[in-house]
Amino acid sequence: MFVKTTDIDRLSARLGADRVLAPAGALPQPADRLDAGGPLRPAEFEVAVQRLCLDATSFQNIRAGAGADPARMAERIAAIVGARGKMHNPETGSGGVLLGRVAAVGDAFADGPAVGDRIVTLASLTMTPLRLEAVTRVDPDSAQVEVAGTAYVCDSAPWGRVPGDLPGDLALEVYDVYGAASHTRALARPGDTVAVLGTGHAGKLALAAAREALGDGGTLIAVDRDPAAVQRMRALGLCDLAVAADLRDPLGAVAAVSAAGGEAADLTIVVVSATGCETGAILLTREGGTILFFSMATDFTTAALSADGMSHDVRMLIGSGYTPDTGSYALDLVRRSEPLRRALTGAGA
Amino acid sequence: MFVKTTDIDRLSARLGADRVLAPAGALPQPADRLDAGGPLRPAEFEVAVQRLCLDATSFQNIRAGAGADPARMAERIAAIVGARGKMHNPETGSGGVLLGRVAAVGDAFADGPAVGDRIVTLASLTMTPLRLEAVTRVDPDSAQVEVAGTAYVCDSAPWGRVPGDLPGDLALEVYDVYGAASHTRALARPGDTVAVLGTGHAGKLALAAAREALGDGGTLIAVDRDPAAVQRMRALGLCDLAVAADLRDPLGAVAAVSAAGGEAADLTIVVVSATGCETGAILLTREGGTILFFSMATDFTTAALSADGMSHDVRMLIGSGYTPDTGSYALDLVRRSEPLRRALTGAGA
Repeated sequence: MFVKTTDIDRLSARLGADRVLAPAGALPQPADRLDAGGPLRPAEFEVAVQRLCLDATSFQNIRAGAGADPARMAERIAAIVGARGKMHNPETGSGGVLLGRVAAVGDAFADGPAVGDRIVTLASLTMTPLRLEAVTRVDPDSAQVEVAGTAYVCDSAPWGRVPGDLPGDLALEVYDVYGAASHTRALARPGDTVAVLGTGHAGKLALAAAREALGDGGTLIAVDRDPAAVQRMRALGLCDLAVAADLRDPLGAVAAVSAAGGEAADLTIVVVSATGCETGAILLTREGGTILFFSMATDFTTAALSADGMSHDVRMLIGSGYTPDTGSYALDLVRRSEPLRRALTGAGA
Repeated sequence: MFVKTTDIDRLSARLGADRVLAPAGALPQPADRLDAGGPLRPAEFEVAVQRLCLDATSFQNIRAGAGADPARMAERIAAIVGARGKMHNPETGSGGVLLGRVAAVGDAFADGPAVGDRIVTLASLTMTPLRLEAVTRVDPDSAQVEVAGTAYVCDSAPWGRVPGDLPGDLALEVYDVYGAASHTRALARPGDTVAVLGTGHAGKLALAAAREALGDGGTLIAVDRDPAAVQRMRALGLCDLAVAADLRDPLGAVAAVSAAGGEAADLTIVVVSATGCETGAILLTREGGTILFFSMATDFTTAALSADGMSHDVRMLIGSGYTPDTGSYALDLVRRSEPLRRALTGAGA
């Protein structure tokens, strides 16, 4: 990581900082605007973009703001990308990932993909230079948006090949949230009580990963405000206890988990798309336990100050979307677990 | 922690949830408004408030918004407390702590303080019901604000006695950020390279705690944008390397630490009061290292997505202000370390 002062320009290019238009000195993720114009630069590869997979928080925000109207959703997406040079929702701060075909690879890439490879970017869309020619299809019930456009992936940004043995949609959904599986697997210990808050794609992966980590013992609690969603997790065998509760009513959530026979969790995985769930997550976790906040709807100060004010000693982790396996664990989990595949694809239990 | 459903009302009172006016079901920290009116309730004690110690981020915000004018700063503080029933800065989301004398103790308190005790609340002001009769003194260069008012401290909220052997101002400053010392002590390992970003009160405590944890080995790097501030840390022996750098220019900060002979840190403690420092903190930390974000200016999504997009595998912790020692380690550190006392009180090196 550490570099001679003379290598700062090379590090800057590897990180894509040479594409930041504003503010000066920022790196691409927090930047306001990126230059998404050609030509390709040496430490990048170019992608002919076919699809965006918006993160759940951004998707819900865009859907709500457009009254679930596909044309207005498409306009909003085009407007954000046009203004910022990246699909970085200014209201949620979040992005997603994209799928496309590699069109060209820069000279400075050693281990890059080959031209023609079908790839998924694993860096957030909030840092990926992107220009769109068209938003070709929006389904208001899906975070996957078909587009025609061009993206540039810098040398330091993670990416993955679309596997030949899994449907493209499924692979994209898994790649978007693969870190939930890898982190959960690393954090859960045999015998633990693990609570997974939220049963979207990331929640399903976390449940399956926790099940592998717990082995035959332990207790796996799924919490979601949608009773049908948690019952489905239970029917598929992805959890031991299914609890319908809204975490924005933290005492109600504690009462519901207690009533279902659940204990305070050793490990809580927060993968909700709603805001205001930090306090509930803390109350559901035992003293000395660990909380992984993997939701982009997490508010830092609320989490820090709530634990503080309740005298509740929990280890709280910010869940990065990156883990060194870059998605291979999550994809293998999907291959291994028929219940998980069913849960992710909506097939009958 | 876990409770029978019938005990939820008791838990609610212990957490101070019965004082939440809006929104319904919220706990005090994230709530919009609290009821700060009398009388005292059974699971609380009442404090005759003498002083607020605003957290650094909120103080800088109020100072900047009022053009450093004491009267306008006082008006802003009174307005926030009047509107919310707590000193919860709506622009920064942060609070601070308060100092006062215990006026009454509720019947349901087992291990409460005694009437007349001089105490500091250790729960954030963002969750402490507070009404102010007057803001009696504001110094635009100090986060300590003299007031007359009344606060109610619920059973679950941590608090500490003002020690007889340390000046009140100093004890209050230490109590406000004591977690920086306790967390750093727990996270640093002998031989580590530890980077402390920011040299305010929390930074000074973190440096002294890291020095104790590192023993004779390891390297302690202090980074601040103010060259005089880091040089003073060096002169007091509180760090090995003093680096003046603005973390909002992350590549510049990497270059500055490298030029000073520093390595990527095993442990990075983020105690800056400025926003936009997440990426710099990540780049200054080695692959596999740990970052403790203790600054209330931290943005969750920026931290998560930056680490993600740079393929940088770091463990990122949300630093709660609470640790089970409730400040005793930090106070002992101040008693033990003359350089730390000098640093905190501004006495000559």
